[in-house]
Amino acid sequence: MELVLINGQWREADASGDFQAENPATRELLPERYPISSWPDCEAALNAAVAAAEELRRTPPGQIGQFLEIMADRIDAGRDELVAIAQRETALPAKPRLADVELPRTTNQLRQAAAAARQISWAMPTIDVKANIRSLFEPIGPVCVMGPNNFPFAFNGAAGGDFAAAIAAGNPVIAKGHPSHPGTTRYLAEAARAAAEDAGLPRGTVQLLYRLDRADGMRLVADSRLGATAFTGSRQAGLQLKAAADAAGKPIYLEMSSINPVVILPQALAKRGPEIADQFCQSCLAGVGQFCTNPGLVVLIQGTEGESFIATVAERFRAAPVGTLLSSGVATALGKGIETLHSAGAHILVGGLPGGGAGHSFANTLLRVSGKTFLADPHGLQTEAFGNASLVVVAADVAEAARVIDSLEGNLTGTIYSDSAGDDDTAYRAIAARLRSKVGRLLNDKMPTGVAVSPAMNHGGPYPATGHAGFTAVGIPASLRRFAVLACYDNVRLDRLPPPLANKNPTGKTWRSIDGVWTQADVA
Amino acid sequence: MELVLINGQWREADASGDFQAENPATRELLPERYPISSWPDCEAALNAAVAAAEELRRTPPGQIGQFLEIMADRIDAGRDELVAIAQRETALPAKPRLADVELPRTTNQLRQAAAAARQISWAMPTIDVKANIRSLFEPIGPVCVMGPNNFPFAFNGAAGGDFAAAIAAGNPVIAKGHPSHPGTTRYLAEAARAAAEDAGLPRGTVQLLYRLDRADGMRLVADSRLGATAFTGSRQAGLQLKAAADAAGKPIYLEMSSINPVVILPQALAKRGPEIADQFCQSCLAGVGQFCTNPGLVVLIQGTEGESFIATVAERFRAAPVGTLLSSGVATALGKGIETLHSAGAHILVGGLPGGGAGHSFANTLLRVSGKTFLADPHGLQTEAFGNASLVVVAADVAEAARVIDSLEGNLTGTIYSDSAGDDDTAYRAIAARLRSKVGRLLNDKMPTGVAVSPAMNHGGPYPATGHAGFTAVGIPASLRRFAVLACYDNVRLDRLPPPLANKNPTGKTWRSIDGVWTQADVA
Repeated sequence: MELVLINGQWREADASGDFQAENPATRELLPERYPISSWPDCEAALNAAVAAAEELRRTPPGQIGQFLEIMADRIDAGRDELVAIAQRETALPAKPRLADVELPRTTNQLRQAAAAARQISWAMPTIDVKANIRSLFEPIGPVCVMGPNNFPFAFNGAAGGDFAAAIAAGNPVIAKGHPSHPGTTRYLAEAARAAAEDAGLPRGTVQLLYRLDRADGMRLVADSRLGATAFTGSRQAGLQLKAAADAAGKPIYLEMSSINPVVILPQALAKRGPEIADQFCQSCLAGVGQFCTNPGLVVLIQGTEGESFIATVAERFRAAPVGTLLSSGVATALGKGIETLHSAGAHILVGGLPGGGAGHSFANTLLRVSGKTFLADPHGLQTEAFGNASLVVVAADVAEAARVIDSLEGNLTGTIYSDSAGDDDTAYRAIAARLRSKVGRLLNDKMPTGVAVSPAMNHGGPYPATGHAGFTAVGIPASLRRFAVLACYDNVRLDRLPPPLANKNPTGKTWRSIDGVWTQADVA
Repeated sequence: MELVLINGQWREADASGDFQAENPATRELLPERYPISSWPDCEAALNAAVAAAEELRRTPPGQIGQFLEIMADRIDAGRDELVAIAQRETALPAKPRLADVELPRTTNQLRQAAAAARQISWAMPTIDVKANIRSLFEPIGPVCVMGPNNFPFAFNGAAGGDFAAAIAAGNPVIAKGHPSHPGTTRYLAEAARAAAEDAGLPRGTVQLLYRLDRADGMRLVADSRLGATAFTGSRQAGLQLKAAADAAGKPIYLEMSSINPVVILPQALAKRGPEIADQFCQSCLAGVGQFCTNPGLVVLIQGTEGESFIATVAERFRAAPVGTLLSSGVATALGKGIETLHSAGAHILVGGLPGGGAGHSFANTLLRVSGKTFLADPHGLQTEAFGNASLVVVAADVAEAARVIDSLEGNLTGTIYSDSAGDDDTAYRAIAARLRSKVGRLLNDKMPTGVAVSPAMNHGGPYPATGHAGFTAVGIPASLRRFAVLACYDNVRLDRLPPPLANKNPTGKTWRSIDGVWTQADVA
């Protein structure tokens, strides 16, 4: 019997079919079967979520915080089992990646979200005392979280960053698991279910569907009962969902694609080329390149230092072991991406062919193109090749590099390496001004693959990297505000206000803007 | 020669035709002719706006504040002339409405926006000291502001709330004037042009096109050079523009339609029915009902007090002078709206026919329907009849009133009148919980037509009242953040950070979140 989690119970799915995950390292199907839900499962989940949303609105934030903390504790306690499941489904290394990096990141996110829920400052309570007009962000309603393939824990629909943000903002979550790691998602959803029970949250707080056909997915994100959707995945799928949600006036927060340009300026290259090459190879091949912020495009200025950098990286790419990709789909898409870059005029310096590692794999691939050729087909040459591949653009000069930057679509990140002594500063200014408008996060002298869970983080950026450049998917409390609506109380009697807008500070620690002053004090 | 304002100059339009405004009170065409711009005008405006946006990014916020203040002063200085022009084009009373209410509101908005630009707190600079990750909201790029017919000053594309917010956030504006008051818009745009010159802002800071054909409008909001669009107007036009902008991944902030339900609970009706009837009639007929927050739907519980309220209002509507509507289009749409309500089962108690006032007019109209009938066709019976008309729903009991509320689409506002002594409190709780999720602003004991320019205001609400319930069109600083993107600086060297993210507070007064604490201090 194939089960989905609906309204607090693992119950038989109304399935149109089923599927099995694969062990990417052996290409063997794993034994468990999971259902492809048909619309009645969505219907049941939506109805339960609506009921849960109503109850959550009356639930003290501390209880929501408690849920998130219990869930984090349960995940920590089940670490070995969870890592084993995920390792089998993703072929990501158990250590350090899954056990020592991604799992702690995930529980840390849940605990940060719990603290944010308890403090309430995320809601930005704003009080105009004299006019007695008060407003704050309130929960948006049931959130559908569609997780990606590449972070089985940290972006999982049933436990990751979007999940934590949606819950901390007071919303129930309908998780749509990624079909490449259903067992991992099941484990996490069960941790959530048990934690909800422990914390006394409504039964529909966390629900899980594994897989939907395309039409049902589009229907789900457009459903009037849903508050919003968070999606991390391919541009193609994201844009289809966006069209459906937009037509219904439903917010959808998308993180779709990014090639994360890295510009290495001449004096930085001259003075510390080998060190940067080191950082680049590590960043580009980590996780077999399967990070949203993987540096997929490097821009250099032509010259002997650039040639030396390219030669070093090519050598490293050739020598480095080839990792296992997350799925046959990733391997195929990577091959297609590289083929598109090649057809558009890029030369393959290293790699370019499937295989070389266990299971689904593709050779570490480095491509090269001149700035001039890039500018002749910027569309084709900024095709994302998701995985262990990168394209080096050799520009004739800084002005041409700037035009390359101008030709880019929106990206999550943009990085500039420059000389520490200031010898690249003129070039820096020219490049940074252009790169700034193309990316959500501008970095100096550091590869973009680390995405710290910091209040100042922006894991977002201009379309088509995301659907709206004003929001971030990582970083608390800002990520919570995606799943909220602005709610104003005008002349509402004091005893009817929600606690965060009462004269008394609801926690003694909540930051509120009172007559234009941010304070933790009560209304005077 | 018909001129548009492009790149700081009034220059001949590339026009596909022209149009004249009408004096709604006399139905006479006014003599001036204005161009219908064809695409080359948009093209020129977009290019100038891109150049201006780049320059504005390097302009100190104080200079932008100065521009807004000079513009406000110019408008104040030209008050009599401006009011005369607007009065002729809109038939709105010169006094008090245009001269004493709307014009001061407009200059107040400009000055509040100036103060916000100077203080920079709107940008929410956020600093993680240890990780050296810092972020803030930065300008989104050229903003197209499409103003509505009903506030020739306060929501004018070249001077109103959206304009002020877009400019204060550091963006140039391409104003698309409303064709019903082109002379007013020209006057305001000239005030902006002159103020930009005085303040030394780029020539493309404020530009004006009067009218576009539909296809060019859709092309404009989707253009890659544009940052975002703000639109206030009809749902039909808004949804067309939304579809075009959404498909291109361009933010568009829409304020489209709202019937602003007002629920009057039994004991409030019993104890102060006449007073509430007074407030209602004044609110509903003010500005000939042509406010976004006009109370178009009143929900009562059946009984003698309700009948008495309805009789009082009917009498007042019959006796009140019939005002002049803004245009023949408004009169026609009002008639159609009333016809739709009538066809769906509402009875016309008063009015229902065109005429009765000077020029374009329509009788003050009061309709009535039972809760049961409403619930049989909630779609038809919540049709907006924009103007001096309102529908009273007489519900059998509070439970039925609650179902009526449940059947509503998203609205800007929702109001509940309840007994001051607490005798309606049970009913209040039932209604308020439902109404809250349907509206952006919940009011007690006060009609919704006043929209204070307060930091706590929300002039927004769930779709289809607007396009995204997280944003407000009125209220500073929140309204500025619509026209901004989140920009993160990760490990960026201190001397390269934008001033609001430097260790030193850029103004000594800017509120910044440093390691989770809102403060005006420097980084320690």
